[in-house]
Amino acid sequence: MLDKDTISAEFKTLQDNICQALEAADGSGKFVEDQWQREGGGGGRSRVLQDGSVLEKGGVGFSAVYGNTPEALQQKMGFPQGEFFATGVSIVMHPHNPHVPIIHMNVRYFELSNGTFWFGGGIDLTPHYIVPEQAAYFHQQLKQVCDKHNPAYYPEFKAWADRYFYLPHRQETRGIGGIFFDRLKPEGRRDKTALHTFVMNVGRAFAPIYTHLIALNKDKPYTEAQKEWQLLRRGRYVEFNLVWDQGTKFGLETGGRTESILMSLPQHASWRYNHQVQADSPEAQTLAQLKQGIDWFSI
Amino acid sequence: MLDKDTISAEFKTLQDNICQALEAADGSGKFVEDQWQREGGGGGRSRVLQDGSVLEKGGVGFSAVYGNTPEALQQKMGFPQGEFFATGVSIVMHPHNPHVPIIHMNVRYFELSNGTFWFGGGIDLTPHYIVPEQAAYFHQQLKQVCDKHNPAYYPEFKAWADRYFYLPHRQETRGIGGIFFDRLKPEGRRDKTALHTFVMNVGRAFAPIYTHLIALNKDKPYTEAQKEWQLLRRGRYVEFNLVWDQGTKFGLETGGRTESILMSLPQHASWRYNHQVQADSPEAQTLAQLKQGIDWFSI
Repeated sequence: MLDKDTISAEFKTLQDNICQALEAADGSGKFVEDQWQREGGGGGRSRVLQDGSVLEKGGVGFSAVYGNTPEALQQKMGFPQGEFFATGVSIVMHPHNPHVPIIHMNVRYFELSNGTFWFGGGIDLTPHYIVPEQAAYFHQQLKQVCDKHNPAYYPEFKAWADRYFYLPHRQETRGIGGIFFDRLKPEGRRDKTALHTFVMNVGRAFAPIYTHLIALNKDKPYTEAQKEWQLLRRGRYVEFNLVWDQGTKFGLETGGRTESILMSLPQHASWRYNHQVQADSPEAQTLAQLKQGIDWFSI
Repeated sequence: MLDKDTISAEFKTLQDNICQALEAADGSGKFVEDQWQREGGGGGRSRVLQDGSVLEKGGVGFSAVYGNTPEALQQKMGFPQGEFFATGVSIVMHPHNPHVPIIHMNVRYFELSNGTFWFGGGIDLTPHYIVPEQAAYFHQQLKQVCDKHNPAYYPEFKAWADRYFYLPHRQETRGIGGIFFDRLKPEGRRDKTALHTFVMNVGRAFAPIYTHLIALNKDKPYTEAQKEWQLLRRGRYVEFNLVWDQGTKFGLETGGRTESILMSLPQHASWRYNHQVQADSPEAQTLAQLKQGIDWFSI
């Protein structure tokens, strides 16, 4: 029976499997786990890997929380009075090597006491240096996962990611996007099981995609200047997460567990005033591609 | 006549004088100026010093903007339809040496076409390591500036700074506070000239206070571990500015000049998951004093 406990248990297993795969890809880093409980109901397992061989800092969080729907969820997310249940897995990885991209993945499930429920999630990639073939590979993998369920998913969720992972104050996307979806509910022939399978497939796609990108890039040499560029790009990542990301803002404003929410921030980030890139440099080429609506299969 | 152009011109002179004093205190760093214009009316002079001897990164911004009151100002700040004028000086300094505190100063003046006007501003200090005598000195200087105008100012504006410069998600103040005030209008015997004089005195107090604190601390030796602590504290500074500071959020959400708004961010900042300080260490002592309501004259 596909009840909330089953969904939550599968997310937990997903967290286990992803952590295992990431530790194997890193080679030396180990995740350290913090279990925490939420006043009001539920809790989570936050796992952080710091100072690995490949990964400088990364978090893989699982949570399953429930209870009376807080006032804030009613006001800001339009939830009705009553009880809520929310479970999910959230990941951000910041590698040492600027040629290895930053990645983010999230899968989540909500259920309200009025009987409504939905799934959400996505994966998006933030290369410090965009490599067109790798961008195409990344989107191709996501498209494959989507196409198995519905050919309309990839174009719709790719456009959604472009809109969501956007910094209006920089007029830049966070990276090359990916897929993003929210409030996916049963509709027509799409039942709860089909949605659940889709979301689990998104979650299971994460480790093979990212470990492949790690393998391609982790041994590339890099310069001091490329490292500085990485720190500046991480500064943008911090800007997106703290200023625009709905989940982060909402969590911090409503008393979520700060350390778990801010696992997404890099160990080191940098800001320079009005930093300019050299014309035609790899940095300029990357910046030129931080735009919405790019078809990564034809660049 | 104390009109908006006079006020704005005096702010401009204040910017000049402060930049001069900071360059002298730094010894080698020079401010680089960017002049910018605002679509819709007005503009500013952003001045940034990077990679100085004492200061790693700091900005002193002046602006005077006007025009039709934007929709966003009406909705978020309750301004009536019509025209607005706003001018001010804004400063944040991030030093290299963790024993030199971060400082922030702002003075501002608003005027609306319906005839209302007000002043706002303040100075607050964020030491990476709190030194009680220096905290007392800092607050004493601010109290003196306040007391010359009104003995009620310091306690009121000190409490306001404690409330404003606060990170609810960390249950920490940003630093040791200082003074903060907004929407100061004529009242009783307090006329526009008196308010203007007070605000200019706050602005003029900045350079002597900060250059004194620089002189006291800039040659103190520091360890790698103290430098790392500084980067973590800067991470908190970034969190405050991007998540909670009304001016920053408002500016970024309403199309302000991003580079001028984010001059306040440090060149390098750091985040560690769930960082813990050693009991009774200087870091623990500082953390214990990042609380609201501390009387800095009796610690």
